[in-house]
Amino acid sequence: MTDLILPDDQVHRGHDTRIVLVVLDGLGGLPHADAGGRTELEAARTPNLDALADRSSLGMIDPVGPGITPGSGPGHLSLFGYDPTKYIIGRGVLSALGVGIDLHAGDLAARLNLATFDEKGLVADRRAGRPSDTQGRRVVDKLNSSLRQPEGFEVSLTHEKEHRVVLLVRGEGLGAELTDTDPLEEGVPDLDCRATAPGSERSAEIVRDFLAQAREILADEPALNGFLARGFATYERIPTLQERFGLSAVALAKYPMYRGVAKLVGMEVPAIPLNVEQTVALYQKNGPARAFSFLHFKDTDTKGHDGDFDGKVDAIEEIDALLPRILDTEPDVLMVTGDHSTPAVYKEHSWHAVPVLLASRWARPTGGGFGESACRRGDLGRFRGTDLMALALAHAGRLVKFGA
Amino acid sequence: MTDLILPDDQVHRGHDTRIVLVVLDGLGGLPHADAGGRTELEAARTPNLDALADRSSLGMIDPVGPGITPGSGPGHLSLFGYDPTKYIIGRGVLSALGVGIDLHAGDLAARLNLATFDEKGLVADRRAGRPSDTQGRRVVDKLNSSLRQPEGFEVSLTHEKEHRVVLLVRGEGLGAELTDTDPLEEGVPDLDCRATAPGSERSAEIVRDFLAQAREILADEPALNGFLARGFATYERIPTLQERFGLSAVALAKYPMYRGVAKLVGMEVPAIPLNVEQTVALYQKNGPARAFSFLHFKDTDTKGHDGDFDGKVDAIEEIDALLPRILDTEPDVLMVTGDHSTPAVYKEHSWHAVPVLLASRWARPTGGGFGESACRRGDLGRFRGTDLMALALAHAGRLVKFGA
Repeated sequence: MTDLILPDDQVHRGHDTRIVLVVLDGLGGLPHADAGGRTELEAARTPNLDALADRSSLGMIDPVGPGITPGSGPGHLSLFGYDPTKYIIGRGVLSALGVGIDLHAGDLAARLNLATFDEKGLVADRRAGRPSDTQGRRVVDKLNSSLRQPEGFEVSLTHEKEHRVVLLVRGEGLGAELTDTDPLEEGVPDLDCRATAPGSERSAEIVRDFLAQAREILADEPALNGFLARGFATYERIPTLQERFGLSAVALAKYPMYRGVAKLVGMEVPAIPLNVEQTVALYQKNGPARAFSFLHFKDTDTKGHDGDFDGKVDAIEEIDALLPRILDTEPDVLMVTGDHSTPAVYKEHSWHAVPVLLASRWARPTGGGFGESACRRGDLGRFRGTDLMALALAHAGRLVKFGA
Repeated sequence: MTDLILPDDQVHRGHDTRIVLVVLDGLGGLPHADAGGRTELEAARTPNLDALADRSSLGMIDPVGPGITPGSGPGHLSLFGYDPTKYIIGRGVLSALGVGIDLHAGDLAARLNLATFDEKGLVADRRAGRPSDTQGRRVVDKLNSSLRQPEGFEVSLTHEKEHRVVLLVRGEGLGAELTDTDPLEEGVPDLDCRATAPGSERSAEIVRDFLAQAREILADEPALNGFLARGFATYERIPTLQERFGLSAVALAKYPMYRGVAKLVGMEVPAIPLNVEQTVALYQKNGPARAFSFLHFKDTDTKGHDGDFDGKVDAIEEIDALLPRILDTEPDVLMVTGDHSTPAVYKEHSWHAVPVLLASRWARPTGGGFGESACRRGDLGRFRGTDLMALALAHAGRLVKFGA
């Protein structure tokens, strides 16, 4: 799969149309016998989305490709018009985004597990007995205040949840070609962090020094006395929506990972909504001044993971009720879709295609309301996620003709 | 078109789910006035396939790409998840597979026509009067027992049918960058076999020597007194289904070419079915112990070539009657499709998209039975053949998430 076919000189830079992308995380579903064979979206009472769909172009999206189950990072990059097989976000970077770290180009990040080492230095518990958040935060604070910083570099920890911690190293010339130290079993020593390519040697030294210091500083801790590290990744700046498509953009998302992925592509994050209603309110305040607004709603995915069909239906209906406030801002293009499917009967992200509606004055409506059945009969057909941005730009009048 | 997006580390290796691919060769059809505008598949009475389709995801496959009429090799490679524009099987290799030769990496193969040369050495008949199989086999045996083998190489012939013969050269350092010797007209001399790239010079010498020997040995034959050679190709090993997707695989196919293409991707061929019923019986015996089973049924294609609409309908109905025996083995994923269309009204392979059903507990059924009309309204939409394997692996729970 290649990036979308958009030569830079095809994009109007001075246009004043506005595009809104509403992502219901994990929107796509599977039929449920108790709902008469309907999916979550089909079972939900969504008068506003249905009316919007009936004047929209409909279709089904493969966020990454047929059969491929997207993680949240690739799913969103795709909707933003970035080929997720080309723009790879490493696990360490995604974890850093997830805890809200404001990454700089060249930063090295990794996922750490707090672990218990026995008196012989062997790994006794890879998750340190799953400590409480309070316990986890306590030792992270202890380390951040005690670590000796390597010359020219800044090493810091951010607590995520329970035993999970994010390591950030900032400085010049860091590589991420490093081996994990997690042996993936207990009763053995942790592994050495080694550079597997030139350019990562200094990173390896810094990580080894950090891990040794941590063992020293935490020596008096009974359980939380060391770390296992994996998923090393450096953050590389990627071209922004402004640079690629001339779009000033804003992201409204409650959860840090989604704000983080949005920041990767240059979106502004003016404020953090605490709930669904605030997401819309902050959009009303900040969206109309920008060319592109991204609104992220998480509950559909969460309920899908829980296997809670009715809960996912409720989450969809909650957004439906708020839709008129988005429509009131009169965007030129309004898209509603998901970053992947999380069918309640499957309880996980899945590979199934995701319904999408694209409302604009240039839509080709096919009717039937908003749901998988209507969308697979829609004008847009089935297409890769990266093509959505090209469609949005086109409907917004932001693309010029290709060729003479 | 690229190969399907399946980084190696996305495939679970230890999984115990089972995938079955049933290929009705040339399945796709065209509407026929005498059948009320229905296709062969739509006209066939297929209660078992229809019931299966109604709980399956349906779609339409372009085996190679829109407008492209696939040969049997590319059509099957595509269904196996191998981009047929990347994995090219040369004509000589396909012919060798077709006569059941067990190819080794580096083997050079070509298609030969038995031809008649006149006393001036000009080509009098490019097909030697289309000899009987008995006559063809007779001269092939004569040559195999009389040829002087070049030092370090093994040259052998296998009779295919009538005037068609396969040449195999085995040894180190053979190239296939050779010109054909068939002048494509009569009353002229045959062409010289020349190397067109470095590395094929030795091959050219061996072929020229073989052709000269054949003329000598067959000098006393009135009609079958020489060969025209074309389609030189070397056999290169390609990664197996086991290596790429962790799949142990078995092929049940009556005809050698399909067993040959299956062997190319590492499938085992435990036994050779002599008819449709035996194909299913051998699957019942050998399939359940493997992760992937490929069942090939030829009659649909043969009847299509014959322009025999009703015969193709019968061939489809024969498979339908055997379907319950496949379902009884409870595969996790069962796919039924074709490697291309062979519409009876067209009498040839065609470029038309091919209906496919994919049954699994995670399907998104859309109903309407099994036929072109139902499949083009299906959840899978229209997609390239290479994506089928990704979908199968996903439905079998054999893929991990793409990115975090």
